[in-house]
Amino acid sequence: MSQKSPFTLHCLSTECDARRGEVRTRQGVFQTPVFMPVGTQGTVKAVTPENLMEMNAQIILGNTYHLFIRPGHRLIESFGGLHRFMNWKGSILTDSGGFQIFSLKELATITEEGAAFRSHLDGSKLFLSPEDAVEVQQSLGSDIMMCLDTCIPFPSTRDETIRATELTTRWARRCRSAHSRREQLLFGIVQGGMYPELRKEHAEALIDIGFDGYAIGGLSVGEKPQIMYDMTRETVASLPADYPRYLMGVGTPEDLVEGVWRGVDMFDCVMPTRNARNGSLFTSKGKISIKNARFRDDHSPVDEECGCYTCRNYSRAYLRHLFQAREILSYHLNTIHNLHFYLTLMANIRKAIEKDNFARFRQDFYSKLEYE
Amino acid sequence: MSQKSPFTLHCLSTECDARRGEVRTRQGVFQTPVFMPVGTQGTVKAVTPENLMEMNAQIILGNTYHLFIRPGHRLIESFGGLHRFMNWKGSILTDSGGFQIFSLKELATITEEGAAFRSHLDGSKLFLSPEDAVEVQQSLGSDIMMCLDTCIPFPSTRDETIRATELTTRWARRCRSAHSRREQLLFGIVQGGMYPELRKEHAEALIDIGFDGYAIGGLSVGEKPQIMYDMTRETVASLPADYPRYLMGVGTPEDLVEGVWRGVDMFDCVMPTRNARNGSLFTSKGKISIKNARFRDDHSPVDEECGCYTCRNYSRAYLRHLFQAREILSYHLNTIHNLHFYLTLMANIRKAIEKDNFARFRQDFYSKLEYE
Repeated sequence: MSQKSPFTLHCLSTECDARRGEVRTRQGVFQTPVFMPVGTQGTVKAVTPENLMEMNAQIILGNTYHLFIRPGHRLIESFGGLHRFMNWKGSILTDSGGFQIFSLKELATITEEGAAFRSHLDGSKLFLSPEDAVEVQQSLGSDIMMCLDTCIPFPSTRDETIRATELTTRWARRCRSAHSRREQLLFGIVQGGMYPELRKEHAEALIDIGFDGYAIGGLSVGEKPQIMYDMTRETVASLPADYPRYLMGVGTPEDLVEGVWRGVDMFDCVMPTRNARNGSLFTSKGKISIKNARFRDDHSPVDEECGCYTCRNYSRAYLRHLFQAREILSYHLNTIHNLHFYLTLMANIRKAIEKDNFARFRQDFYSKLEYE
Repeated sequence: MSQKSPFTLHCLSTECDARRGEVRTRQGVFQTPVFMPVGTQGTVKAVTPENLMEMNAQIILGNTYHLFIRPGHRLIESFGGLHRFMNWKGSILTDSGGFQIFSLKELATITEEGAAFRSHLDGSKLFLSPEDAVEVQQSLGSDIMMCLDTCIPFPSTRDETIRATELTTRWARRCRSAHSRREQLLFGIVQGGMYPELRKEHAEALIDIGFDGYAIGGLSVGEKPQIMYDMTRETVASLPADYPRYLMGVGTPEDLVEGVWRGVDMFDCVMPTRNARNGSLFTSKGKISIKNARFRDDHSPVDEECGCYTCRNYSRAYLRHLFQAREILSYHLNTIHNLHFYLTLMANIRKAIEKDNFARFRQDFYSKLEYE
């Protein structure tokens, strides 16, 4: 039932499960492993599409839940889709809304039919079935759509996990049936909590339905990093080698390195953008908090090794001043730096896999960390 | 005592007092009449220096009071001045801090010696003498510095106005004496309230001291536009034709047209940047409020006649969405549009004066206004 895979493998690491490849969407091709900046409400917060292009972002993420509520998928469809509405020429992946609805907690009720919830904006009653989730994403015109899934709290018992995972399977089947615009890719989401055998079973059930790619969901929800890495490895082992693998909502720079090591192709996370707005900046030596008084007179850039617009033109002292003064330019320059850091990390990871020296790269990456 | 004038006249209107010229600073030359975007705290809010260059901003304004308080002029001096600190390659004019201190009201006490005030940030006691104002601006390295003046509330009696204006003259003399870095220009500020004869007397007193340019201060403080225009004309009539004239803190697009008509060369105002952040956008037909529900489905740009980045790439519906969602990109795109509108207006005014058809230009400008 699945179409030809959108994934093309370039090369495999001989040292680990890392792989170098590309994914073809109707919008173009992106190189993997890839990090996708998050653009929740039709904008990657605090930067323009041109800023993203300059830092070689290839694909960004949009949040179905947010766009469904405001400004509405029909409005965006009338503009020819999200790409045109927001002026983004790269690829777009939309999530299904499941995770956001799950995050609403007492505002949401999950039934066999779908998710009933109240808008976080005005409290109005809304409903999203698996079919709705696909329809909304088809209207948004995203290049990669995600199945509506039920997220599993951490920790959960084996029985709770089985119930939620089986519902996710039934929803995945309904999403696949509702998927009419086949030029937009649809990914399934593997759940199974922290139970390796449930993850394996769920992966097999989804593969049986057949999707254009497979995501690893339900991780980075409070478990220790090592558990997340183990669950990633276990899940990847059950996924077909010829389809893209996407670890959802992950993570720190360390998490990206470890995820790639275990065979993941795609990542997304609000961390670089959200941290930027809080003054937390990534460097090759670790994170720094730009509001720290020790940067008051600091003439050096955020990261001597960084070639981003912010580091080429501004000192830590200036960035600290902007942050203290709550200037909008602070969020802009910090976001450019953090996203550039993430995207450059991924570009360097891709090069390392091509040269088959990713183990050495990973060792160097850790040996440079000083700050924490 | 004054140096050679930095002003070169290109041509005079035969229809009014408008004039086309240029001002040379140590940073370069800017074309007049000019509008100067306001960059209060070492950044024009919500845009980068590159954004400003793209819209042909030639000179920006920095606020001495704010930079004195945070991050401090000594810190900025250690970076080689404000240009380098904030990465701005055009000219910079700094105000003296007088207007901001005046705005603090109960936090400020004016004596013969200078202005005692409390920081609006932490309440700490500070003092700024005329000599301090020049020293701080010399440290900031601005291309054009302003004398410390005493601002006169509106309305004020003739006696109050005389007292304040005479103090401003004594402070202007002290500023001139303290002015050691003569490659940085120093402008005097003509006060005199709404009394034409006091404005004339004050202009003569300042010309007697001798400055590199003359500003018209104390207007746009609550008086009716026609009064402001009349006071501008009266003051300009007393100023030397071979020196630049600067109408401080003004104003609306209409005010710019009327100021140029009466012979003003330079303007600054927070209006385009502040309005942008409030969703109020300038167009050739008048102002619009982008949050208005009638723009919900509007596929057209803010202004069909505008060639700015925002109008080339985004619809009113998208801008409304960003504004409603309080996205940082909203402030960025709105600011780009409004500043582009102001700077293009001035560029078109310059062309009209060159062709000596500014009266026609002014008539067309008013005839297009529909919205208010």
